[in-house]
Amino acid sequence: MHYPPHLLKLIDSLRRLPGVGSRTAERYAFHLLTWSPEKLTEMAQVIAETPEQVKQCGACGCLMDGKACSFCDLKRRETETICVIASPKDAFAIEHTHEYKGLYHVLGGLLSPIEGKDPQSLGCDKLRARIRTHNIKEVVLALDSTLEGDATALFLKKDLEPLSLHVSRLALGLPMGSSLDYVDGGTLARALSGRHAF
Amino acid sequence: MHYPPHLLKLIDSLRRLPGVGSRTAERYAFHLLTWSPEKLTEMAQVIAETPEQVKQCGACGCLMDGKACSFCDLKRRETETICVIASPKDAFAIEHTHEYKGLYHVLGGLLSPIEGKDPQSLGCDKLRARIRTHNIKEVVLALDSTLEGDATALFLKKDLEPLSLHVSRLALGLPMGSSLDYVDGGTLARALSGRHAF
Repeated sequence: MHYPPHLLKLIDSLRRLPGVGSRTAERYAFHLLTWSPEKLTEMAQVIAETPEQVKQCGACGCLMDGKACSFCDLKRRETETICVIASPKDAFAIEHTHEYKGLYHVLGGLLSPIEGKDPQSLGCDKLRARIRTHNIKEVVLALDSTLEGDATALFLKKDLEPLSLHVSRLALGLPMGSSLDYVDGGTLARALSGRHAF
Repeated sequence: MHYPPHLLKLIDSLRRLPGVGSRTAERYAFHLLTWSPEKLTEMAQVIAETPEQVKQCGACGCLMDGKACSFCDLKRRETETICVIASPKDAFAIEHTHEYKGLYHVLGGLLSPIEGKDPQSLGCDKLRARIRTHNIKEVVLALDSTLEGDATALFLKKDLEPLSLHVSRLALGLPMGSSLDYVDGGTLARALSGRHAF
């Protein structure tokens, strides 16, 4: 006895969400079967309308709230620093800290040979052009502390060298509220080498 | 800086999936932002078409593949047993074991005062009518071994008592391939009391 063909289609569609395997997709699909047609149509509409409703800023790549990009509002932002991030989501997390007031630049991904993300896909020309236009003094690389993040940061550092800017990267160390017992050796080593006067 | 309103709508919509909290919903939503409009429209269409494409059988409540319910095909099924299940999904899992050839009856949920599922919502009249129509000899209660499953099984047992049928429930014991070390006390106790000659 097999699942009806449309149910298989639904499961397949849900499996494309990040981190969703076939069992989770099945669970989601059978849950959707219990919804009313109105509720399903509403969800379908929200998904289908996303491309026209949520736009990325043509300059920085962040999400726009309405027609103007509030991350590019030069009257309210400090224009001497630019923060390079992988995804538009990161801008919201950084804004939330209230520690940064400069501009943003979304790469749209990190270097990853497995996923076919090569240096061309990072769009360094565009970043360099923005640095020149805004007369940027510091580039903050706010990238993941993973293999892909490290590779991307190193690549960008080399790429930006001729512009003789101050290039910085996020500090590595203990996460807030963590116990030394649970911190991995690599993190502890970086927290030690980056220790500061107290 | 807040998420654009449509993105909040999308996150809200995805949060309604089972076991999805706000962080997972955000992750799904930002992933959907990277999809092409065609891929999003396709997913939306699959979701919206579900109610008309996937129908539940009016008699047993299982999912129908096309116009006829293959779970109700009286020529191929043994009609002396009926297996009571909570969701249409369970029928597929039981069919997969090849241990059962009888009829099914989907309750559509288990007794749960918290979720507002009372005895009326189980539709016992319909179950009793089917038992009489098919001249059923045995009712197999294939329900979860949880508080809700136990309550539902006890309720159905009492409700079916006047019909003087054989009412059975799934065996409780060790799951296949499990080590005694990792089995909880309740399961081990039931496995002991249900031990069989070997």
